[in-house]
Amino acid sequence: MERVRVAIVGYGNLGRGVEKAVRQNQDMELVAIFSRRPAGTVKVMDKNAAVLNVADAGKYIDKIDVAILCGGSATDLPVQGPQFARLFNTVDSFDTHARIPEYYEKMDRIAREAGHLSAISIGWDPGLFSMNRLLFEAVLPAGSTYTFWGKGVSQGHSDAIRRVEGVRDAVQYTIPVPEAMERVRQGENPQLSTREKHVRQCFVVAEDGADKERIAREIKEMPAYFADYDTEVIFISEEELKREHSAMPHGGFVIRSGKTGEGHKQLLEFSLKLENNPEFTASVLLAYARAVHRLNKEGQTGARTVFDIPLSYLSPESPDVLRKKLL
Amino acid sequence: MERVRVAIVGYGNLGRGVEKAVRQNQDMELVAIFSRRPAGTVKVMDKNAAVLNVADAGKYIDKIDVAILCGGSATDLPVQGPQFARLFNTVDSFDTHARIPEYYEKMDRIAREAGHLSAISIGWDPGLFSMNRLLFEAVLPAGSTYTFWGKGVSQGHSDAIRRVEGVRDAVQYTIPVPEAMERVRQGENPQLSTREKHVRQCFVVAEDGADKERIAREIKEMPAYFADYDTEVIFISEEELKREHSAMPHGGFVIRSGKTGEGHKQLLEFSLKLENNPEFTASVLLAYARAVHRLNKEGQTGARTVFDIPLSYLSPESPDVLRKKLL
Repeated sequence: MERVRVAIVGYGNLGRGVEKAVRQNQDMELVAIFSRRPAGTVKVMDKNAAVLNVADAGKYIDKIDVAILCGGSATDLPVQGPQFARLFNTVDSFDTHARIPEYYEKMDRIAREAGHLSAISIGWDPGLFSMNRLLFEAVLPAGSTYTFWGKGVSQGHSDAIRRVEGVRDAVQYTIPVPEAMERVRQGENPQLSTREKHVRQCFVVAEDGADKERIAREIKEMPAYFADYDTEVIFISEEELKREHSAMPHGGFVIRSGKTGEGHKQLLEFSLKLENNPEFTASVLLAYARAVHRLNKEGQTGARTVFDIPLSYLSPESPDVLRKKLL
Repeated sequence: MERVRVAIVGYGNLGRGVEKAVRQNQDMELVAIFSRRPAGTVKVMDKNAAVLNVADAGKYIDKIDVAILCGGSATDLPVQGPQFARLFNTVDSFDTHARIPEYYEKMDRIAREAGHLSAISIGWDPGLFSMNRLLFEAVLPAGSTYTFWGKGVSQGHSDAIRRVEGVRDAVQYTIPVPEAMERVRQGENPQLSTREKHVRQCFVVAEDGADKERIAREIKEMPAYFADYDTEVIFISEEELKREHSAMPHGGFVIRSGKTGEGHKQLLEFSLKLENNPEFTASVLLAYARAVHRLNKEGQTGARTVFDIPLSYLSPESPDVLRKKLL
């Protein structure tokens, strides 16, 4: 079996997830891990993978089929996306929704010029959730689509709490409101405010002697992050935070409720329940790395999203086996 | 807006569903309905659609972009599929799983020779469920996939009951076993027998004076259809059957439970809850008619399944609007 030679760019939770996912896919091979840290300081699991500085990526041009970019969307990917698309086919999880069109244009131009293919915004939202939003609207044009996130840890919201004065550490859970989901599933097509859809639960470790009332108030009143939600703040010890809240669960639901004919209710639902969010996202990135490699071999270049890539390219099985086994 | 000119072939529940679905899609236009019945005897809703005998399809070669084949898989589609693929792009819901490879080969060859594109086995199973089975396996390679059907009316099983001596009419519901679904959702990866996954509930109208005990026994012992299931037989009046059991609900679940990393459980689930099964299937067929028309305009010919067609082709929106709104 010809194996897809993969590189990981950025070795945080997501990068380590990709390394683990490669082991679950016999047609994939991890060739190199690029990190900004000095090579000697990066401890990787796979002994056969080269550990290199991102600056040395150019030396691996003929040794890598797809580079999987595991950096963050705020500052890493806007730089590394274009940089790596010049050298390799790429897959990334760019998830700053508002900036996707701009990022797409740039990646499309650069990848096309370089003869590479770049799958952007891969993962579950954007990603699998986006696919279902599109599919659901297309097959049920009269209706409403709802996305609920959670129960799960939001890294961005946890970080925001950590910036409050007197906070030592924090973990924030986004939780969908069951009553809202039930109304959607009943086909009520409700207009739901931000507050009605999700609640936010914050486990906070305060510095010794800090004013907990002020901390709780500052969190609850924080614009954009918490002010529009019913927010619960729970103070716990550092030990309890580490013991009970260091997993990275997440998940969510895409639900479309619509009607056909003379008013027959039709309900479509897609959901994820993840014990480990970065490992699952990594697993999705890897399936798209397979697709990107194949499509590029067929001559395709430029940027693609989950909307553009036929599902058959994600599977290691041949089209006739897929038709026989899974259709 | 250029509209996709659609024909319906076969005017039963599914054909009427397509006619209703066209009204929900402003970029679609119903041009003709082909039926085997004499044209004067077919009452259609859309006054602008021509009503014709299937034998006259050849006269419409330049007036139709896609023919949507709404006949059954047992006897209609094996004949009408090839026949119409010579004349038009087609979409059908061929659902005899065991014969899909053979049907695909034939449709692929004929459509290719004629310069047309044929989407086969479109609907929800095969169709949306198949897509999710493939997607789930690709993004979570270590795990097990389960498909549950119902609660819903199985036409095939209802027909089988009607063939039992002394039965005037019957409706059969396929019902997934909640305990089995719960075990799957808990990540137990159970081995489930046919009996453990679904129960069958039969509402039967007996002829006057018929031996109900014998009827119930014959149903429960019927090989392939009922013998492998826990089957409940409930005798009711003809009036009650018409009043309570003439809707056509259906639905089901595709669930994949798998693991990543050092054993983190990940759960993916897709489900449908349909008040009207043929109307929903019709709505899916129409979205794929849009895709088939577009792909054929781009030069693609031959047979395709849900595995081959990128999602963006299903939507009337442009790719940049889709990236902005739904990604």
